[in-house]
Amino acid sequence: MNITYDSLREFTATAFSRAGLAPEDAATGAEVLAMTDAWGVYTHGTKLLRGYLRRFKAGGLRAKERPTLAAEGLAWALVDGNSSLGMVTSVFAMQTAIRKARQCGIAYASVRNSCHFGAAGYYAWLAAREGLIGLSMANDKPSVAAPGSRGGITGSNPIAYAVPAGKHRAILLDMSVATVAGGKVYAARTRGEKIPDTWLLGGDGKPTTDPSGYPEVGALQPAAGHKGYGIALLIETLVGLLSGAGVTQGVGNWLWDDGTPATHHGAAFIAIDIDAIMPAGKFIRRAEAMVDEIHSAPRVEGVERIYVPGEIEWERYDRAMKEGIQLPPDVLSSLQEAAKMAGLDFAGLAGHADEMNSKPSS
Amino acid sequence: MNITYDSLREFTATAFSRAGLAPEDAATGAEVLAMTDAWGVYTHGTKLLRGYLRRFKAGGLRAKERPTLAAEGLAWALVDGNSSLGMVTSVFAMQTAIRKARQCGIAYASVRNSCHFGAAGYYAWLAAREGLIGLSMANDKPSVAAPGSRGGITGSNPIAYAVPAGKHRAILLDMSVATVAGGKVYAARTRGEKIPDTWLLGGDGKPTTDPSGYPEVGALQPAAGHKGYGIALLIETLVGLLSGAGVTQGVGNWLWDDGTPATHHGAAFIAIDIDAIMPAGKFIRRAEAMVDEIHSAPRVEGVERIYVPGEIEWERYDRAMKEGIQLPPDVLSSLQEAAKMAGLDFAGLAGHADEMNSKPSS
Repeated sequence: MNITYDSLREFTATAFSRAGLAPEDAATGAEVLAMTDAWGVYTHGTKLLRGYLRRFKAGGLRAKERPTLAAEGLAWALVDGNSSLGMVTSVFAMQTAIRKARQCGIAYASVRNSCHFGAAGYYAWLAAREGLIGLSMANDKPSVAAPGSRGGITGSNPIAYAVPAGKHRAILLDMSVATVAGGKVYAARTRGEKIPDTWLLGGDGKPTTDPSGYPEVGALQPAAGHKGYGIALLIETLVGLLSGAGVTQGVGNWLWDDGTPATHHGAAFIAIDIDAIMPAGKFIRRAEAMVDEIHSAPRVEGVERIYVPGEIEWERYDRAMKEGIQLPPDVLSSLQEAAKMAGLDFAGLAGHADEMNSKPSS
Repeated sequence: MNITYDSLREFTATAFSRAGLAPEDAATGAEVLAMTDAWGVYTHGTKLLRGYLRRFKAGGLRAKERPTLAAEGLAWALVDGNSSLGMVTSVFAMQTAIRKARQCGIAYASVRNSCHFGAAGYYAWLAAREGLIGLSMANDKPSVAAPGSRGGITGSNPIAYAVPAGKHRAILLDMSVATVAGGKVYAARTRGEKIPDTWLLGGDGKPTTDPSGYPEVGALQPAAGHKGYGIALLIETLVGLLSGAGVTQGVGNWLWDDGTPATHHGAAFIAIDIDAIMPAGKFIRRAEAMVDEIHSAPRVEGVERIYVPGEIEWERYDRAMKEGIQLPPDVLSSLQEAAKMAGLDFAGLAGHADEMNSKPSS
């Protein structure tokens, strides 16, 4: 069943409004989640709406709070999320970084007292949309092992970057420091399936193909071993140590706990103003040439295309804007529960979808 | 055979002086290489001296040139290496970033017209030594595949960071975006050994256990697949696209070619001034607590310690300062050739070592 981007965004905004958010904040949160679904990153899109609503209800997130600028300098800012919606705080922080980067060339905005912020890629793209290079990152409750550890040492700590590329869409990478997303392990558990032995470590800290204990027991394996672990600690440093946010075991679980405490997530956003450093047109020509070169490089037999990061997501986005977003069953059932919590008509959203689906045959 | 850090540094500085470098530049290059050996990163230490000397002789590196500030803003700088020694250019660029970060909180210095810069970790550590967070990165001639490519798309593109950690040594990660260093593959080739199928792709772009064609044929596998590839492109962007340096196929090979052309390597350095953002003492206490927490985390049975990035290198450093540096045979034979090229007495360096080695028994 396909749902239009606009109707998904409006439904989500209405749900956030019902939770008590000001219209502008509700719209911000809704855009981040709907855009993430349009990119086909369903694990981090509107599927999470239910979790945020639950947290607003329980008090761990505060609908009436807004992010504030706690401290700032020429090329840096410290944003206090005040336990408002993580997406609202993150957009505010990246916008602050963009503004300062336009003055200084580069700027860094760190965030404390935030919560789960959805997909890191959205904020990096905010910068690229305005012609800057953007980086965004966050920490989370430990779920990823270090080499030799029994249990999680760092969060899955997403990091994303986006680079304007002219005739091509922005180069856009959004990755976690784990070999795979915890959601993939949990999905295998739900389906009663085995997993490759490179994904998870069991309660003894050793590789396992059995996901049945996750997430209560064990930890995800760090991507490329000590490299993923090392990048995770860089992220803890930039988002947590230097912002006053929680670090490693000091970050709470936003999804599975009782929802009442603040989670103390940290985040960080870096913007680099291309045009301050090099004529933007020159940079764009160079970026286009790099992408063209990669596209025309020799390929393994049977491989049709070498992708640049983000191209798969942008293709899904184009399809979503044309044909609507085909939300998977787990997202739909989560949205149904969110609708119930917000007192909204889910059938309305679904009806909208049916209407759209019937178009091609009409 | 153990050689003292000082004698290794002095030997290297003298060799650089003989190549025509000013004493200050020769000392800078020598410190980077000797320090790298002290950390036990022998692939990137004085073993490379011979290659740099060869390039000075051939004209691809220019002994009398120095890096210049080509352009700058409040929190950014563009450094032109003018084909001077990569280590001299990189130290200059990181020092520029540190100076600007002290004014602005964060600063970014990119570099064009550089060459191979040795170990990325050294420059990150320069910042941490002065109480700042440092990042450094560079590109190189393509040797690492992208998912689906037949042949290299990006360089092995090193990235390093360093974070001051008070009573602990600086957290220090220096990694490439490939699963393993090309040197490990080449060493297996030299020994006629097979390699794990996760290291290399053959001429057909498929995993191979046969290193006999490397580096002429095939490409290294990117660490964690699309993640390593994606980070490699972020590095190409920050060191190359935005500096005017070479990008991907535009970067030359500094070690295997005829040595006469400029290689057009790019590099980038980011410094973040902790004390501008948070009282340094508070940051240090937080960093110490994070490291302590990791050290005391539950371990896999049989594992004695969970390391923080850099601890292994710092332990080697402490041992090297006490007992001298135990250079492996390949480094010693490379130094012997470097001595010949510079008209220096290698036996003198070795004699120094023997003297030291004889100490314990005297």
